[in-house]
Amino acid sequence: MTKTPIAVYGFEESQDAAKRLADELSAPAEDVAVHRFPDGESLVRIDAMAETAILYRSLDHPNDKLVELMLAASVLRETNPARLILVAPYLCYMRQDTAFHPGEAVSQRVVGRFLDGLFDGIVTVDPHLHRTPDLAAVFPTARTATLSATPLLADRLRDDGVSTDTVLVGPDAESEQWVDAVAAPLGLEVLLGGKKRHGDTDVRVEIPGVERASGRPVILIDDMVSTGSTLIECAKQLTAAGAETIEALVVHNLTDRQVDAALREAGIARIRSTDSVPHSTNAISLASLLSTAAGEFLP
Amino acid sequence: MTKTPIAVYGFEESQDAAKRLADELSAPAEDVAVHRFPDGESLVRIDAMAETAILYRSLDHPNDKLVELMLAASVLRETNPARLILVAPYLCYMRQDTAFHPGEAVSQRVVGRFLDGLFDGIVTVDPHLHRTPDLAAVFPTARTATLSATPLLADRLRDDGVSTDTVLVGPDAESEQWVDAVAAPLGLEVLLGGKKRHGDTDVRVEIPGVERASGRPVILIDDMVSTGSTLIECAKQLTAAGAETIEALVVHNLTDRQVDAALREAGIARIRSTDSVPHSTNAISLASLLSTAAGEFLP
Repeated sequence: MTKTPIAVYGFEESQDAAKRLADELSAPAEDVAVHRFPDGESLVRIDAMAETAILYRSLDHPNDKLVELMLAASVLRETNPARLILVAPYLCYMRQDTAFHPGEAVSQRVVGRFLDGLFDGIVTVDPHLHRTPDLAAVFPTARTATLSATPLLADRLRDDGVSTDTVLVGPDAESEQWVDAVAAPLGLEVLLGGKKRHGDTDVRVEIPGVERASGRPVILIDDMVSTGSTLIECAKQLTAAGAETIEALVVHNLTDRQVDAALREAGIARIRSTDSVPHSTNAISLASLLSTAAGEFLP
Repeated sequence: MTKTPIAVYGFEESQDAAKRLADELSAPAEDVAVHRFPDGESLVRIDAMAETAILYRSLDHPNDKLVELMLAASVLRETNPARLILVAPYLCYMRQDTAFHPGEAVSQRVVGRFLDGLFDGIVTVDPHLHRTPDLAAVFPTARTATLSATPLLADRLRDDGVSTDTVLVGPDAESEQWVDAVAAPLGLEVLLGGKKRHGDTDVRVEIPGVERASGRPVILIDDMVSTGSTLIECAKQLTAAGAETIEALVVHNLTDRQVDAALREAGIARIRSTDSVPHSTNAISLASLLSTAAGEFLP
């Protein structure tokens, strides 16, 4: 094996996105070959080495991926690269940032330190941080680059020729930062949902000013969708309020087919997402954004 | 939470075996509660603390289990126990102890160091070590106790009133240590299979002296069964040689239903295993063996 200056290593599920990043960096895209044995163990093999080794893997459905990432990092580390960088457009375990009940593992901290020990640098996009101010608290020693895809979402709506009448809706308080960042450059109106508690178990989403959506096109904006329950609740209320059309634009789409069907049924005509997590709704490539950040780690 | 002197913490899949170990140690059995979110993340909660915290989990189908183990270890470590012990009757990733091809991760070393960093002591049973002399090479700092279940297998055959005519068969060279250890105290005859290469891809098992099994009861002995291919190959040859009956007795049974059916079809009338890995063939409890070793870690 001879060492190239930079290489991007992609696991099977993200080979296309890894290739797009490699192309942006004018670097070769290399495979991380994974063989899975019947007993559930994974064998990881990498055939090329680089001075700057960029391992690309989004960490949705993370447990298997974390163990294989540890194995891949060990192979690359043994080739003695000048730097080993993780590009994980979607980072896992960011929501469990405290013990909500006594005795709970603070997964964000535990998994953060695990990744911190494996990599010299970590690049991610719109991590789902609530109470943690920034990623430096999650990764104590690795250099980190936290990117936001919201400019790309705004660009996409501009390219679509979005009508000035369109209302952007953030489904809950946490989504405010994302919906505001998309709406601002386009000068669009924003509505923000909020969770309202009606008794112990009955938590409903309400959208103050929802009547303003009547007869207008609506686009739901969020950082991620997984169970879809918040988007579904919002879509129902927007439909009831007489919205003309409802779409959704998200950074990370982690839904399965069942959730996809439920979202359509709730009146969401189209969902588009970045290619952060491989999904049939992928419509926006993060490659250019990621390449800029990865470039900061280069000599 | 008040601290008990010793507690055994079991994950859901091994609660029964963890309870048997706790009973042997006259210690409480505590649950490791795991909630699995739709996005594939795991939330781990533990409600009790102990001076000596014994985390019980066998590591078959290991990737999910390793991540949850890391989360559980972090919760227990935060309660500041005097010692945190892992009891993993079946240890994972022991076979990939070298790079068989360039660029392969040496999983045994990587996973070994990962576990070594989480626990003060590690107890296991008949680890599948080929070229590694002992577990101290796998776990550089944790104290380790490596147990063998072969005396329990021999005891079980003695309790069965095994006939002195019985032949014990080790399916391959690697099984020699286990079949010899079971046969010796019972004074039974041993046959040992061996893999013979007939060209590049045609690898067959041969049992020198297989004709001696004619008209006699045969018991196949091995440390583990997973794909079952070696046991199936042996059983066919023992049937062809006229064995009266064929059974199997193994330490770790990792087979699924499809393999179970194939083993029966190959003529193996009964398989029995220890409770190392939860399985319908579990017939021998490791609790007393494990409690002796766990006891060595106590003050």
